Amino acid sequence: MEIRGEMLIGRASVYGQSGTLRAIDPASGEKLEPAFGCGGASEVERACRLAREAATAFRASSGETRARLLEAIAAGLQAQGGALQERAARETGLSPARLIMERGRAAGQLRQFALAARQGLDAGPRLEPGQPGRLPPKPDLRARHIAIGPVAVFGASNFPLAFSVAGGDTAAALAAGCPVVVKAHPAHPGVSELTGRIIQQAVAECGLPEGVFSLLIGDGNDIGLKLAAHPAIEAVAFTGSRAGGLALLRAAAQRPKPIPVFAEMGSINPVLLLPHALADRAEDIAAGWVDAVALNAGQFCTRPSLLLALKGESLTRLQRSAALKAASKPAETMLTPGMHSNYHQALQRLRSLPGVAELATGLPSPGPHAAQLTLFETDGATFLAAPELAEEVFGPCGLIVACRDLAELFEIVASLDGQLTATLQLDEADLPLARELLPLLEARAGRILANSFPNWVEVSPAMVHGGPFPACTDSRSTSVGIGAMTRFLRPVCYQNMPAPLLPPALQDA
Amino acid sequence: MEIRGEMLIGRASVYGQSGTLRAIDPASGEKLEPAFGCGGASEVERACRLAREAATAFRASSGETRARLLEAIAAGLQAQGGALQERAARETGLSPARLIMERGRAAGQLRQFALAARQGLDAGPRLEPGQPGRLPPKPDLRARHIAIGPVAVFGASNFPLAFSVAGGDTAAALAAGCPVVVKAHPAHPGVSELTGRIIQQAVAECGLPEGVFSLLIGDGNDIGLKLAAHPAIEAVAFTGSRAGGLALLRAAAQRPKPIPVFAEMGSINPVLLLPHALADRAEDIAAGWVDAVALNAGQFCTRPSLLLALKGESLTRLQRSAALKAASKPAETMLTPGMHSNYHQALQRLRSLPGVAELATGLPSPGPHAAQLTLFETDGATFLAAPELAEEVFGPCGLIVACRDLAELFEIVASLDGQLTATLQLDEADLPLARELLPLLEARAGRILANSFPNWVEVSPAMVHGGPFPACTDSRSTSVGIGAMTRFLRPVCYQNMPAPLLPPALQDA
Repeated sequence: MEIRGEMLIGRASVYGQSGTLRAIDPASGEKLEPAFGCGGASEVERACRLAREAATAFRASSGETRARLLEAIAAGLQAQGGALQERAARETGLSPARLIMERGRAAGQLRQFALAARQGLDAGPRLEPGQPGRLPPKPDLRARHIAIGPVAVFGASNFPLAFSVAGGDTAAALAAGCPVVVKAHPAHPGVSELTGRIIQQAVAECGLPEGVFSLLIGDGNDIGLKLAAHPAIEAVAFTGSRAGGLALLRAAAQRPKPIPVFAEMGSINPVLLLPHALADRAEDIAAGWVDAVALNAGQFCTRPSLLLALKGESLTRLQRSAALKAASKPAETMLTPGMHSNYHQALQRLRSLPGVAELATGLPSPGPHAAQLTLFETDGATFLAAPELAEEVFGPCGLIVACRDLAELFEIVASLDGQLTATLQLDEADLPLARELLPLLEARAGRILANSFPNWVEVSPAMVHGGPFPACTDSRSTSVGIGAMTRFLRPVCYQNMPAPLLPPALQDA
Repeated sequence: MEIRGEMLIGRASVYGQSGTLRAIDPASGEKLEPAFGCGGASEVERACRLAREAATAFRASSGETRARLLEAIAAGLQAQGGALQERAARETGLSPARLIMERGRAAGQLRQFALAARQGLDAGPRLEPGQPGRLPPKPDLRARHIAIGPVAVFGASNFPLAFSVAGGDTAAALAAGCPVVVKAHPAHPGVSELTGRIIQQAVAECGLPEGVFSLLIGDGNDIGLKLAAHPAIEAVAFTGSRAGGLALLRAAAQRPKPIPVFAEMGSINPVLLLPHALADRAEDIAAGWVDAVALNAGQFCTRPSLLLALKGESLTRLQRSAALKAASKPAETMLTPGMHSNYHQALQRLRSLPGVAELATGLPSPGPHAAQLTLFETDGATFLAAPELAEEVFGPCGLIVACRDLAELFEIVASLDGQLTATLQLDEADLPLARELLPLLEARAGRILANSFPNWVEVSPAMVHGGPFPACTDSRSTSVGIGAMTRFLRPVCYQNMPAPLLPPALQDA
């Protein structure tokens, strides 16, 4: 497969005429070939029209058909693994080892959704026989879930395989029977095109309507807002910045026909060190935390950037250990020059805040866009007084907050916005305190961990990757794991329907 | 219990200082005593602050506690039945028989939600044991659902008991563990206050925090928008007009922290008469349809106001029967003078449309706000050219569209917006045609009926009362039946959590 700088609109490959964009190798700053042709209103219109035309047939397709489609995409990801990895590495600066892991994750989640599609869209069909003798007579009622319709997917910059063109949102939407129109992330258009071609080919091989998948390319917000505004689009799935997610949410509410927006927008993922765990394991926790902050240049939405503990000797030991560990952490290349520059601006802002001190830095940058690990420390009163300290900084940056007492710790937790995760480091003697903190964490986070770090997001039915705003625009769902399908399904009830018209899952056993 | 014109804010009764409003008896036009004191910003603030303070404890309450609360409310509705009915009848013009039925429905649905709360918020807990030996190790993951937080409820005008202060939305939110702040419908403040006192008393009897329930009173949109904008409110449930629902949806998206809005906004509920059924049963269908259009002055969101059929001799017979049946239908008092006036304006607009003819009217009005049943007829081309014919007219009004051929029937169905319901009248020989129409209906309606009429909405787990916009702002849920609880629940995942910290439902068996 060749990268030609083209969009994929149904079965067609289209070189866009609305300007060009090029990927940049963040390790060198070099612009990569080829130039991609950007799409405009006419390509949005064509992709969405095809998606609408495909929607009815795809909704009616069997779970088996959708499972085969997802498996064909997974197989394609593995067959084209070398080319995907090579291009992804150049476009994102992520390491080959990380990208091999991520490709496995992407293929694995497609296979999980295939299994779910095969099992059917409902945990159990709801069949309620009528009671003609009741007053008023109770009708025969049967309900199932069906696809909501075409979904617009905006992939993440930081997972070019597992949360991008063939990532979790696309897999969930296809499993549910929804056509997908992806807007490629402009930082990795090459790997987007390669992945898109794998999906395009799988759609054709499975004999599905071409509109089941399209891939649009464009720079800036315009094409994305046009896509989200198109009347054929019934839902939006997005992973990225808060500004981007909010812009889509508000645009969707202003449509003549509003639609749901599932935007996962990041988090600071607080870690609470309870006193006994801190006293017993300060050094171990420090090491685990520094690893979790630094991993892949800190470019995880689940990076645990905020560490909360009581001030004192144990916390001092932890800080010393963390500083020591940090000092040997190599700088890693960030995904884009823009992110690198944003990261440096954020560090400058943090350094200028009164009451915030730099605790440690990692090794200095070896390349133009490598980010140096930077750890800060402050006290609880400063944290409470400076709301910007509770905002996400994308990159390898961590903040330790030394709380005066438990009351201040509780006050800080209660002040936090919605989070993807919250973590407790606790020993058995900390259980009573943990029990008091838990309700505050439940109200604020989608996932609560004990004695681990949250970066790894297991793809499984019990996973919740989401949480109250601003972690996500819809706390009632997850973007990881087969639970994500429910975002793209709606219930339909059949009343007194003759058996020959009922879908197979709703027939009498 | 006495009606004092007061709001209920937690355990307090408060006479508002921001103007007054009075209910009007629509049968006579007479203003009813007492004058209600309207609330403003300070009452919104107090109710919402109390709700926020109650949220954590109520979220953590046992299903048994919430079940008892719901049952106490149901018992209160029955104990105070006489007073409720009497006041409701005066404020709404609805008949005693209808209100007795509705009170039973309200109590019954509270008891269904009580049962659901007792059974727990999850169909089955999700427990995934860890696999420490896997690479990377699989963590222990357990997920459950918890309450989203305080919910603002805006009740419907047309169901003063079953979809108002103690209606489906309130029952669903309380069952889920969410405090509720109700904005009383200004057309029935008296029955709202009486019902609110029943809930207030039940909250106290169950030893729950007072903020679990408050009732605000106000005229106009201001107090409602203030309520929906309050930072403590985590979701909005609304039943009413499209303009009202859209205003709330858009206000919610503009909040610093956007929240979901579940607005059920009505529908024209198309009925499709397939040719064999029409030929065989024209007279029966006509009778059933006229009854369904006229019931309770047509004031059902599920009133089947649009009838689609092929033109021809059978349809002529149906029209003749419908006209005959309509002629003897008495006029019934509408809920408010404003609705009555809107209904008459809508009839004037319909009468002035070229190509639309008046087929029949019922008996003329006996009172100042009684609405005369009015049936119109038109052809498919006129319907397709005049989008206002596809808009809901609230009142006893129906439209028969004679389609030229099947192609035009399909075109009309495809042109329809989202609907709460769609109905097929069919005989066995119509099955092939029904099979072709079904996918179009599934894409457009929350509930699809065969050989019945949709007014009655059974309260049951398989019911779907919702549908694509504008029937509802969120097609992925229902506002009737215990499925409505899922609107107010969000998932939380516990990772590697020590057993003593896990909620009981997530403990090892």
